[in-house]
Amino acid sequence: MGLPMSSNLQRKGFDLNVFDLDAGRMDQLAALGARKAASIADAARGADVVVTMLPATPHVEAVVLGADGVLANIDAGAVLMDMSTIDANGTDRVARACAERGIAFTDCPVGRLVLHAERGESLFMVGADDPTFDRVKPLLDAMGTAIHRCGAPGMGSRMKVINNFLLLTVAEVCAEAIALGTKLGLDIETMRDVTGATTAQNGQLHTLMVNKVLKGDVTPGFTIDLAFKDMSLAMTAAAEQRIGLPVGAAAHAVFGGARATDFATKDYSALLDFACERAGIAPPRLKA
Amino acid sequence: MGLPMSSNLQRKGFDLNVFDLDAGRMDQLAALGARKAASIADAARGADVVVTMLPATPHVEAVVLGADGVLANIDAGAVLMDMSTIDANGTDRVARACAERGIAFTDCPVGRLVLHAERGESLFMVGADDPTFDRVKPLLDAMGTAIHRCGAPGMGSRMKVINNFLLLTVAEVCAEAIALGTKLGLDIETMRDVTGATTAQNGQLHTLMVNKVLKGDVTPGFTIDLAFKDMSLAMTAAAEQRIGLPVGAAAHAVFGGARATDFATKDYSALLDFACERAGIAPPRLKA
Amino acid sequence: MGLPMSSNLQRKGFDLNVFDLDAGRMDQLAALGARKAASIADAARGADVVVTMLPATPHVEAVVLGADGVLANIDAGAVLMDMSTIDANGTDRVARACAERGIAFTDCPVGRLVLHAERGESLFMVGADDPTFDRVKPLLDAMGTAIHRCGAPGMGSRMKVINNFLLLTVAEVCAEAIALGTKLGLDIETMRDVTGATTAQNGQLHTLMVNKVLKGDVTPGFTIDLAFKDMSLAMTAAAEQRIGLPVGAAAHAVFGGARATDFATKDYSALLDFACERAGIAPPRLKA
Amino acid sequence: MGLPMSSNLQRKGFDLNVFDLDAGRMDQLAALGARKAASIADAARGADVVVTMLPATPHVEAVVLGADGVLANIDAGAVLMDMSTIDANGTDRVARACAERGIAFTDCPVGRLVLHAERGESLFMVGADDPTFDRVKPLLDAMGTAIHRCGAPGMGSRMKVINNFLLLTVAEVCAEAIALGTKLGLDIETMRDVTGATTAQNGQLHTLMVNKVLKGDVTPGFTIDLAFKDMSLAMTAAAEQRIGLPVGAAAHAVFGGARATDFATKDYSALLDFACERAGIAPPRLKA
Repeated sequence: MGLPMSSNLQRKGFDLNVFDLDAGRMDQLAALGARKAASIADAARGADVVVTMLPATPHVEAVVLGADGVLANIDAGAVLMDMSTIDANGTDRVARACAERGIAFTDCPVGRLVLHAERGESLFMVGADDPTFDRVKPLLDAMGTAIHRCGAPGMGSRMKVINNFLLLTVAEVCAEAIALGTKLGLDIETMRDVTGATTAQNGQLHTLMVNKVLKGDVTPGFTIDLAFKDMSLAMTAAAEQRIGLPVGAAAHAVFGGARATDFATKDYSALLDFACERAGIAPPRLKA
Repeated sequence: MGLPMSSNLQRKGFDLNVFDLDAGRMDQLAALGARKAASIADAARGADVVVTMLPATPHVEAVVLGADGVLANIDAGAVLMDMSTIDANGTDRVARACAERGIAFTDCPVGRLVLHAERGESLFMVGADDPTFDRVKPLLDAMGTAIHRCGAPGMGSRMKVINNFLLLTVAEVCAEAIALGTKLGLDIETMRDVTGATTAQNGQLHTLMVNKVLKGDVTPGFTIDLAFKDMSLAMTAAAEQRIGLPVGAAAHAVFGGARATDFATKDYSALLDFACERAGIAPPRLKA
Repeated sequence: MGLPMSSNLQRKGFDLNVFDLDAGRMDQLAALGARKAASIADAARGADVVVTMLPATPHVEAVVLGADGVLANIDAGAVLMDMSTIDANGTDRVARACAERGIAFTDCPVGRLVLHAERGESLFMVGADDPTFDRVKPLLDAMGTAIHRCGAPGMGSRMKVINNFLLLTVAEVCAEAIALGTKLGLDIETMRDVTGATTAQNGQLHTLMVNKVLKGDVTPGFTIDLAFKDMSLAMTAAAEQRIGLPVGAAAHAVFGGARATDFATKDYSALLDFACERAGIAPPRLKA
Repeated sequence: MGLPMSSNLQRKGFDLNVFDLDAGRMDQLAALGARKAASIADAARGADVVVTMLPATPHVEAVVLGADGVLANIDAGAVLMDMSTIDANGTDRVARACAERGIAFTDCPVGRLVLHAERGESLFMVGADDPTFDRVKPLLDAMGTAIHRCGAPGMGSRMKVINNFLLLTVAEVCAEAIALGTKLGLDIETMRDVTGATTAQNGQLHTLMVNKVLKGDVTPGFTIDLAFKDMSLAMTAAAEQRIGLPVGAAAHAVFGGARATDFATKDYSALLDFACERAGIAPPRLKA
């Protein structure tokens, strides 16, 4: 997702200095006019805003806090904006390290899909104080259309955990409802239309599934394996917060069970197929 | 819900012959021009279409199959349309009894709220063959705006079970997500807005809860007690169909636990308050 | 189970008048000296104690309350002892019908296996008042070694529901623990021995499973299908009592899922194999 | 638990060199003849076997792997025996560090209670190769009566996770069964006796609960908070192993919910009281 986001920034007039372990991606950005940095340190030095977009918590901590990492090289007056989806405790550790060195920090995880990022229509969940937000807002405007301020640094990451817990658990609920309905003899078109016209309507069934698994497409937009990790972030947060999530726990266990199978690497909308498999029925597909 | 529905029928030119144990309701319909029947038998005799709208399966079976009930009195060429929300096996028994006597039958449970019924904007889930559907369609058009054909007789009841299972389980998922987010320090407005702009969007949080519990209104539109009964219909159907619903079962248990408390008679959107109570936090409310 | 129980009664000097739809079973008892009755009515008339042992609630209600059933033919001073495992509400209905006619009633479901019944070593859970208990005690002594008084009529059935809920849910817990341990590389012998020597010890793993599934024997002593029905009795009782059973609900869903597969007709100790199948591992077996 | 264990060692002729942050405990052992070490390094140097017994994974890693810790000071031919209950991945890291330096290592977590440790009746779950096991066996014999070899280093920790997952989940099952039975009107004595005489029998109800919560004693032998952490070890192991534990997940969520309340610091047998509180009933107690 970093490539379309930075492409938008470069195209809209920001002067990028990019670094990635994948040289091909750097070349694509260089073709748009970006400068290729030689290292993390080289990319960080001299920047007004350093943007990190990395797979998981350990990567962010290594890149930011590591020996010759961002914090060791960033300019005194610069802002660090982490857009990765990571554990909020990791975000807090990075935020504290920035605060200790007087570096402004904001966490801005991204809430929509790659296709939105390509169109510059991403959604951002921003944890930042006001002055830092004002400094990164032009970049966010260049990459997305929905900017949600969620509170102080760290609250962007927390909002992302809640958002994904909600949508992933709803996905499994839809899978169970449709599997039962299919076994009761209802057509998928009927179930889609009726539930779409009541308060049963939801983005997982009526936006995600109708465009993915219900068309027979389970190529991974977001794998069950990654979804399990996001569910785990929520369950860990619940444990830390001393709050029981009985339905969330049941859904987490289903994702956990799906990971024991070939479903691990499929799109998480394939939860429907997993439910149908366990029920011994053919999964429903929308008529073309 | 029977009163606003029959009021619409009478107002739009249908000639009603009504019977209800509550004389007051019959008077209201008589004021609109309906004839007050003296008994179930009197209401059934001579009608083109007999409409039943009753609380639960035993009422429907008693009224339709009872000694001096509908089937004992209905005209040979008439249609029986049951609009109650009942167990699909009950619907099947009624349908079979009608078939044995050559009476056309359709099940048409209603999928929206009283306020929609008042405006003639109800949604119907129709189990019927084509000729029977054609005969009742003018009545449905007079009462609602969304007519969904779900298959043969009995499939309307099945669709209703799935629809309510889906929306009720999603409601509990929303309750857990918001309780956790609140404990993590997120504002309810932020959670509403962010989840509303991603595929986490759903009718329970963004239509129901924002208008009920999140405004502090838990007066019952649909009580947790009734919601539990609908969840039980789904769990029973799952048992009959030999399909495990792990997340549904967890949600059913939560509704079951809520019924042990004062929450039993509150609106089911109060699942949020129940989750917050268990978590030891004040439930969030939207700012006015 | 009725055959070994009545065989013990006949052998130990009670004078039986037996009726069964299966003539072969009546012949076996006749060979021991029992009289073969021509009908339910014939079996009931003139008896001091009428014992019923039937598969499920509807059979008991039909045999006892039916037109030419037990209650229509039983002597005024006789006792009805129902030893079937049925829904406690069914027991209550039978008990009320007896009370209305002045017939003494007791429910005595059986808590061990066929092999115990054969040896006259059954366990009984008795719901009865004192005089009725005194009258049936000699029969219970002839059939079993453990007699537990559980309270008034109906409490025997309730105790049976709790007992089976507890043991069936523990069985699934054992299945999950062993499946996880197996995946972690632990030997089944090690797991059996260690857990058997701590408070993790339990009759499902250390008595049932070591003698059934862990020896590769999943021939049905008690099928998953029947186990599901017993779990359903508990979940229904929980619903009536307004009590949420989150772990029970999860276990009920697992039994429900197992019923969708070939496991339906296997011994319920095969829950272990079901858990291993879902985990993608070979189920452990004890070395001979 | 370290104090009674080392007291037994010293009393039975082993020559201890002890270190603890709590000077009082060292004094108690010195009174039995042990030498008080000045530091971890001082305790490790010159020993044949170094025994660690610490609260959690980070403590073990700090004490063993830290700058002036055990590995930096242990003799070349010595054995490190860790008896702490920790995450198996932590055990593996310590085992690897030992292997790299040629130090023999064994993990031997303890499976019974403080009262057993005091009597020298502990149970051990040993992960070790044969030569290492032979060297520590005399110490284990001095401290306990049940020694279970579980496999290579690391398997002791894994066995402990399984053992505690099993007993803790069974405890919650018992809590639900007894809460439901109580609400159905059954006496606790009846439930204890009947379930104790069938395969529903288990160490949680029939050994733990009858001696703790059912006597009104919920002073912590093992708190719900600690129990939650052990459940979390199992759930994390399940996640790593890609195995879904639906009933375990539900139980984990119950422990998680109990931690949000005053129950956090009570003995985990108080799960029964937690279940009864949610059900709105007084928890049962055995008659004196």
